[in-house]
Amino acid sequence: MNIVYLNGEFLPKERAQVSVEDRGFLLSDGIYEVTPAYRGEFFCLDQHLNRLRCGLNALRIEYDPEELIEVHQKLLDINNLTDSEVAIVYLQITRGVAERVHYFPPADTIPTVYAFAKQFQRPSIESWLKGFRAVTVPDRRWSRVDIKSISLLPNVMAAQAAVDAGVDDALLVKNGIALEGAQNNIFVVKGGVLVTHPASQEILHGITRSVVIKIAHSLGIPIQERPIQVEELETVDELFFSGTTTEVRPTVALDGKPVGCGEVGTVSKAIYAAFRKKIGQPIDQDL
Amino acid sequence: MNIVYLNGEFLPKERAQVSVEDRGFLLSDGIYEVTPAYRGEFFCLDQHLNRLRCGLNALRIEYDPEELIEVHQKLLDINNLTDSEVAIVYLQITRGVAERVHYFPPADTIPTVYAFAKQFQRPSIESWLKGFRAVTVPDRRWSRVDIKSISLLPNVMAAQAAVDAGVDDALLVKNGIALEGAQNNIFVVKGGVLVTHPASQEILHGITRSVVIKIAHSLGIPIQERPIQVEELETVDELFFSGTTTEVRPTVALDGKPVGCGEVGTVSKAIYAAFRKKIGQPIDQDL
Repeated sequence: MNIVYLNGEFLPKERAQVSVEDRGFLLSDGIYEVTPAYRGEFFCLDQHLNRLRCGLNALRIEYDPEELIEVHQKLLDINNLTDSEVAIVYLQITRGVAERVHYFPPADTIPTVYAFAKQFQRPSIESWLKGFRAVTVPDRRWSRVDIKSISLLPNVMAAQAAVDAGVDDALLVKNGIALEGAQNNIFVVKGGVLVTHPASQEILHGITRSVVIKIAHSLGIPIQERPIQVEELETVDELFFSGTTTEVRPTVALDGKPVGCGEVGTVSKAIYAAFRKKIGQPIDQDL
Repeated sequence: MNIVYLNGEFLPKERAQVSVEDRGFLLSDGIYEVTPAYRGEFFCLDQHLNRLRCGLNALRIEYDPEELIEVHQKLLDINNLTDSEVAIVYLQITRGVAERVHYFPPADTIPTVYAFAKQFQRPSIESWLKGFRAVTVPDRRWSRVDIKSISLLPNVMAAQAAVDAGVDDALLVKNGIALEGAQNNIFVVKGGVLVTHPASQEILHGITRSVVIKIAHSLGIPIQERPIQVEELETVDELFFSGTTTEVRPTVALDGKPVGCGEVGTVSKAIYAAFRKKIGQPIDQDL
């Protein structure tokens, strides 16, 4: 049975319900985080909770997420996920239950806090080494996607566009700039230099994105944070997506055309190997 | 007691709950409508349901809203709202309950249908004649706001910006264009011509907007559908918002500066008088 957390209570997911007047349900007025745990150890939980605090501040939702560290651990324990190679805890906070108006409800409205844990199955290293495919999709999202809000309908439609195209990832393009994925960031490699969009309001400031940047530094790979023109994608050597559940996912075909030489590149491999080492799950097979 | 409709059942609002896995709660994956009823008579219900059908098609949610006509009427009846001067029925359809993924859930997922009715208190004609105030706010919404989705966080923040400024409406501006309100459309009057933004993907195709356009035609007021530069607002004679609960709401001050001569203008008055006549609730007082 899947036990979830809802407003102070641990209960089976089947029984976990929210009011139809929850502002999450009516107005997508809330934010979320997804934190990974590797064999029971949370990875970068502080960073995830810090980003959550920034989001709460941006939306002016008054809530101290400090108590949620314990909730995260308990969700793993109670669901027997401490031995899982990869588990995730999903956490969502909305502005709470109130009569529907667009503007903020009375100040004493209590935020709704929901969290669940689940096992996560990463692709085998064999399929990783074959690489993944992506399509470019127009970025139709709002202009503050640095806030990890639940206002995700544009992301839903973009992710479905990838499914419709029979590929793994959607690469969002706005005003000719390749920004990030529908649920992850992107990196390209060009002439040995790793490039990713600056941490502006136009992308999510991915925790894995910053881990990848640190890894690149430690491996001596030069890195540039600058906008990537969509035309540049035709001449890059490598492209990969990064994210909590994405980890490091190399794209070998974009819009049906090979990326670089159409194989997983050496920089992607080196970064993924270092990432796996960092999370305490090195890859036995030599990349 | 407020009786609401949820997935085929009529029940007290306090008992109406949805699963934490509802894609409305997790991903704002749904749409809504708000239809007015004047003394028990729905106004433009067909148009509202047609717009709903367009939204369902755009989001590829399979659901036939035909049965909801009866639900609308029953919500009025059961809540004793048939004598109300103005009541509204709010209707929301989400893609249903499913394990959280961004892309669409299995095809047999059943949409969630929620609706409630409530009385609506319009401002007195005396306060209407004094006029209302608005502020301009950057339009941070996604690029398909013609779809009346529940992905409303940007609208929430814009509506709150109006509250923070102590005014009645937020006028959304994108790339120098005054598009519409946070929850309504806008019209300006300039040299006797009524102007409103074309029904593109950048504004909601308001039902009241089209009613106002028809009224203007019938009154012989020339009308232009074209983008309105934000600078133009400094030289317009009149400005008003239109919407289901907004009806026709004249703005006499924008960003603290008078609109036109700072009084409710003759075109706004003529259109509101004709609107009130059209809904069978003429204004006794001479505008």
